[in-house]
Amino acid sequence: MNVIIKGEPKALRTVWFEPRANSVRLIEQRLLPHQLKFFRAADYKATALAIKDMVVRGAGAIGATAAYGLAQGARAFRGSSLEQFETHIQRVFTTLKEARPTAVDPVNAMLAILEQMRAGKTVAEKQEIALREAERFANEDVEHCREIGEHGAKLIRRGMRILTHCNAGWLAFVDIGSATAPIYAAHAAGKKLHVFCSETRPRCQGASLTAWELANEGVSHEVISDNAAGHLMQRGEVDMVIVGSDRTLGRTGEVANKIGTYTRAVLAHRHNIPFYVAIPLSTIDWNLKRGLDIPIEERHCDEVLGAWGMTNAGKRAYVRVANPGSGARNPGFDVTPAELITGIITPVGIFKPTELWAQRKALGFTK
Amino acid sequence: MNVIIKGEPKALRTVWFEPRANSVRLIEQRLLPHQLKFFRAADYKATALAIKDMVVRGAGAIGATAAYGLAQGARAFRGSSLEQFETHIQRVFTTLKEARPTAVDPVNAMLAILEQMRAGKTVAEKQEIALREAERFANEDVEHCREIGEHGAKLIRRGMRILTHCNAGWLAFVDIGSATAPIYAAHAAGKKLHVFCSETRPRCQGASLTAWELANEGVSHEVISDNAAGHLMQRGEVDMVIVGSDRTLGRTGEVANKIGTYTRAVLAHRHNIPFYVAIPLSTIDWNLKRGLDIPIEERHCDEVLGAWGMTNAGKRAYVRVANPGSGARNPGFDVTPAELITGIITPVGIFKPTELWAQRKALGFTK
Repeated sequence: MNVIIKGEPKALRTVWFEPRANSVRLIEQRLLPHQLKFFRAADYKATALAIKDMVVRGAGAIGATAAYGLAQGARAFRGSSLEQFETHIQRVFTTLKEARPTAVDPVNAMLAILEQMRAGKTVAEKQEIALREAERFANEDVEHCREIGEHGAKLIRRGMRILTHCNAGWLAFVDIGSATAPIYAAHAAGKKLHVFCSETRPRCQGASLTAWELANEGVSHEVISDNAAGHLMQRGEVDMVIVGSDRTLGRTGEVANKIGTYTRAVLAHRHNIPFYVAIPLSTIDWNLKRGLDIPIEERHCDEVLGAWGMTNAGKRAYVRVANPGSGARNPGFDVTPAELITGIITPVGIFKPTELWAQRKALGFTK
Repeated sequence: MNVIIKGEPKALRTVWFEPRANSVRLIEQRLLPHQLKFFRAADYKATALAIKDMVVRGAGAIGATAAYGLAQGARAFRGSSLEQFETHIQRVFTTLKEARPTAVDPVNAMLAILEQMRAGKTVAEKQEIALREAERFANEDVEHCREIGEHGAKLIRRGMRILTHCNAGWLAFVDIGSATAPIYAAHAAGKKLHVFCSETRPRCQGASLTAWELANEGVSHEVISDNAAGHLMQRGEVDMVIVGSDRTLGRTGEVANKIGTYTRAVLAHRHNIPFYVAIPLSTIDWNLKRGLDIPIEERHCDEVLGAWGMTNAGKRAYVRVANPGSGARNPGFDVTPAELITGIITPVGIFKPTELWAQRKALGFTK
């Protein structure tokens, strides 16, 4: 998507690779929305650290970063011993995997590349395959988001006011995003629309990242407090909700996503407002039998007790908002039942949440 | 209620009067929850300024502050000319009224006192009546809150986990509060309970003021992001919701209150969790025929785009959280329909919202 640099739009991805410098390049997401800077990881250890330290976040984006990191590590190997190369590449894999131990996308991306690398007969061949496959992984991520956009844009009519939550935007993927994909596709097709970005406390990814994305793309939008969604729906000012998902249960159609998603689904249901979830196929969990079994991460209470932002003096700072003597509960995610979800927008089409299991072949479940 | 000063609980009101110094004393609410300081208004103009500058906020609290301010102004008059006194007291009234032009409580409180002052035959008598009536107004505010607590506490069973929103606590009244009154009464009666304070973006009165109150009273509590209420209800961790109200329609039972109240009511309804609104009778609007006609104040977008708090260096600061190029919608209140409200807790008993009109005599509607 575009970012505005010196007043001009410039097309960028969240992560890309520079073969000559053997470097992984990233948008430095920790400085957004206040500063746009680019991060250069000159070796695979720096790439692992960038994942660990949240220079980059979002399932698709860290998957591609790890894929590029694996290729970067492979290409740094000097010598021709296949045995030594194998030892080296295992070390690279482990380092990148441990950068974000609970994420599945980096591991899946890297395992697929390692599988392809077995076809290489020399170190040089394996190095070449590694980069080709990393590029393929990143391009496929973009292509899946483009397909989500193509299907989802059909749901958007001219003049619609769309509520989003958190950031399932292009910053969370290599490009385009999931929940934002239908919005960008409709906008590109010339449909006028307006987006309400729920600020998404406690980390405020809606107010910071999604609003930043939409501003750079020139999409009309406003930030709202998480409390305002119900009032706007009640007054008829929201026509549709689109959110992303961290995990969607293929067997039940339940959707785990950022805390507050469930609340928006309940409100949308009451007001007969369509509620859509946009996901790449890698998000579908075909094993788990009920949403109650999805572990809900309880995050640090400081997130709820204060806020990060930029002071008037231009310094990034944390301010404590809550009573200093008080503690907090901070569940990071919630689970929305299928009955509240109008449809799941995927790269291969739009499905009722309860249809996923019956459509599992089309949705890539091969077992 | 109590505040902890040097480790010891000390009983305090939000506003009180010192006759010898002819001063209105206030808790300096702008510094809470980070600092507890007391404000002294040495003349009625300072009292008006304290109302205007939000040293004190909340309907009951500013009503009593204006009442004391009127007495303070009356008592500052030197001389015995009734005519000059009348001119003076009108100036005092106007100054205090204009400190918060849209609030009705200060005006109602002062008009009632002026009415009583007519019985005084000399300036000295009128001055005496003014202070006596101001004290009576403040004491009645406390008494009404105590009665709300008495009725509401019957709803609270041992071990209950109660969700609140915003601050309808003792800081918004002279003492005790409305939504907090049942909680304090049940706590005083030795019932163990736990309170979830919704942080209440954008101004975070729940995280700052309600949590501060509960901490000082030793009531078990935790702050949650506004997004977490739905998840906690879904997991069976909330037994009851109690909120306050800025305006309750006597004819329909609709309740206007801080933005986000409606969302909590919708969620509670879905989960069959009792949803109560605690109000003094002065909050009931007997004229308006439908909630849609309640004007919803659209507040400054900076509230949504950032947050006020205390830095690590102990300085109060505003940080911008949202994308700098983005705007915001910021409705300050929303309206909850009667069908979502289990009961209205008043000083004279608990009523179904749709019963208010039939019970209007008992509820003090005299026309």
